[in-house]
Amino acid sequence: MATSSLSSVETPFVQVDLDIAERNIVRLQAYCDEHGLKLRPHIKTHKLPRLARFQVEQGAVGITCQKLSEADAMTDGTGLEDVLITYNLVGEAKRERLRALSERIRLSVVADSAAVVDELAAAMKGTGRKLTVLVECDTGARRCGVPTPEAAAELANRIAASSELTFGGLMTYPPVGGTEAVQVFMQRAKSLIEAFGIPVETITSGGSPDMWRAHEAPIVTEYRPGTYVYNDRSLVTRGVCGFDDCALNVVATVVSVPDPHRAIIDAGSKVLTSDLLGLTGHGHVLGRPDIAIDQLSEEHGRLVTEQPINLSVGDRVRIVPNHACVVANMLDFVVLCRGETLIGPEPVAARGRVW
Amino acid sequence: MATSSLSSVETPFVQVDLDIAERNIVRLQAYCDEHGLKLRPHIKTHKLPRLARFQVEQGAVGITCQKLSEADAMTDGTGLEDVLITYNLVGEAKRERLRALSERIRLSVVADSAAVVDELAAAMKGTGRKLTVLVECDTGARRCGVPTPEAAAELANRIAASSELTFGGLMTYPPVGGTEAVQVFMQRAKSLIEAFGIPVETITSGGSPDMWRAHEAPIVTEYRPGTYVYNDRSLVTRGVCGFDDCALNVVATVVSVPDPHRAIIDAGSKVLTSDLLGLTGHGHVLGRPDIAIDQLSEEHGRLVTEQPINLSVGDRVRIVPNHACVVANMLDFVVLCRGETLIGPEPVAARGRVW
Repeated sequence: MATSSLSSVETPFVQVDLDIAERNIVRLQAYCDEHGLKLRPHIKTHKLPRLARFQVEQGAVGITCQKLSEADAMTDGTGLEDVLITYNLVGEAKRERLRALSERIRLSVVADSAAVVDELAAAMKGTGRKLTVLVECDTGARRCGVPTPEAAAELANRIAASSELTFGGLMTYPPVGGTEAVQVFMQRAKSLIEAFGIPVETITSGGSPDMWRAHEAPIVTEYRPGTYVYNDRSLVTRGVCGFDDCALNVVATVVSVPDPHRAIIDAGSKVLTSDLLGLTGHGHVLGRPDIAIDQLSEEHGRLVTEQPINLSVGDRVRIVPNHACVVANMLDFVVLCRGETLIGPEPVAARGRVW
Repeated sequence: MATSSLSSVETPFVQVDLDIAERNIVRLQAYCDEHGLKLRPHIKTHKLPRLARFQVEQGAVGITCQKLSEADAMTDGTGLEDVLITYNLVGEAKRERLRALSERIRLSVVADSAAVVDELAAAMKGTGRKLTVLVECDTGARRCGVPTPEAAAELANRIAASSELTFGGLMTYPPVGGTEAVQVFMQRAKSLIEAFGIPVETITSGGSPDMWRAHEAPIVTEYRPGTYVYNDRSLVTRGVCGFDDCALNVVATVVSVPDPHRAIIDAGSKVLTSDLLGLTGHGHVLGRPDIAIDQLSEEHGRLVTEQPINLSVGDRVRIVPNHACVVANMLDFVVLCRGETLIGPEPVAARGRVW
């Protein structure tokens, strides 16, 4: 990409405005500092060591990853060294990689069943090191997690009793609007575990939609938002931020204007993805609230409006996608800028790291 | 991936059974041969030079790509040399790459407006070569394409009049069930163009859902299906094939069984994607028709059933995804096999090539 201005970068591309991303990071860090909350951002949104380092420099206690391969990519020669993997790690290949990673960085992981706890203990056997394990709790998302505070206490006990593991606390990823349920579940679980004489050092929750309400569950000691660094149409629609706070845009070119109310752009689901997150349409065209992106195929996005569309072949549009995290996973690099100033392409280090 | 059997490949991964893929290729080639149809498979599904070569060896006249960068990846040292790009190419960067590619391989492209025709002519100016351009027609999909046979004839005339371009024929990507509309549109467009004294060499249509009905539009000379090489849940649901004909599966591990009717797997939207294609749920778990994949987040898939789910942490499941093409775009490699015999990982050469 030997080009000197944003307008000459070949479309479609994913543009990340570092000024906006850094402002988002600084603002949430200030909120967490004000409320005595530790911040451990999830890197699933940006997948860039560069932004993770900025988050840590601003005060984050470390980073969150979902998979071992993400943690590998984020800590390999990057200076990042404190990672929580909020995922049950299962299988022989993962045990080996877990052992290797735990030797290299300060690592903690989670478990929501005796089977996973036993896998983790087996992975650490003979290393002479203890792995910190948090219990994942289901506070309403109905995904992973022990279903009750009693089950959380039982699993905490099993972890604490293992000579290979250290009990690190409780973890949840609540559904949107689940802040109060987090408080109730965690209070009860903490009491039960402390009654066993086991300290509960960390209670960690997450989710960008409710990030400005994190202090309403005061039992939570640590927060793990991901999307806040970029924001997206989903968060704008929920009132969490404005379009001006969206650091990640998709830039596309109009390739066809088959009728006065329809235009086709060169970005489809291979850039914008099909994630709807409950919304209608596939993104917001900046400056054109009248336009809906009503259909995507892999390489085509269809823009429609009841007004005259007033776009010509060759015009560029900028789109705030429904879901920033998944868009950042589609291409090998994003194009960094500050406002209209092009910085250049940045490899998405943890893209496609699903193992 | 130093492993000797499929069961030891780390999950999640995308598995491609070459026996099934080759059978699908041979079967459709035989159908096309029987009906005197040229076959020009779209590589958007597999994105693998290896399978494209097999398609050509079996009788395909060349391949179809959607973007220049796909064509670059598919023809760079692969022996493949006949490509139709079914996409309006717009912008200075693309003009340069088009020039370079047209020098290297036998290339044809499409246009659906005077603006695109003029861009293509400008790209070829001074090369001394003529580029073959087909007119894209909208036969009901309401995406790109000229809206009427009259408009197709007008654009064909403009192409034929250019000293840099050769008119190559007509192209459409019809909606599912649009075979009859293709016949009607193309017949009229062909007559109008021939009345100008311009021959219409190729009339090319596509779409795996209607591939076994391609002969019902006898005016069509060439067919461009993509998905048929792998098939998927969408095509099974439409009655086009069976699950035994699905060459691409996602293999995942159960990481949590939080209640007797729910299990969580380590494949989410970063492998299966959110494409629904009008279906309910996010894939078919082979051997378990009672299970629905009712929710995906990026790294989690949620399996639910009204019966006891009878899965344990560590169990593997194989999933036929809704849409094979987009799944093949998510990871850097697929794992090739023949039945239960592992062949090994194969880089997805054209993955993420959206330019």
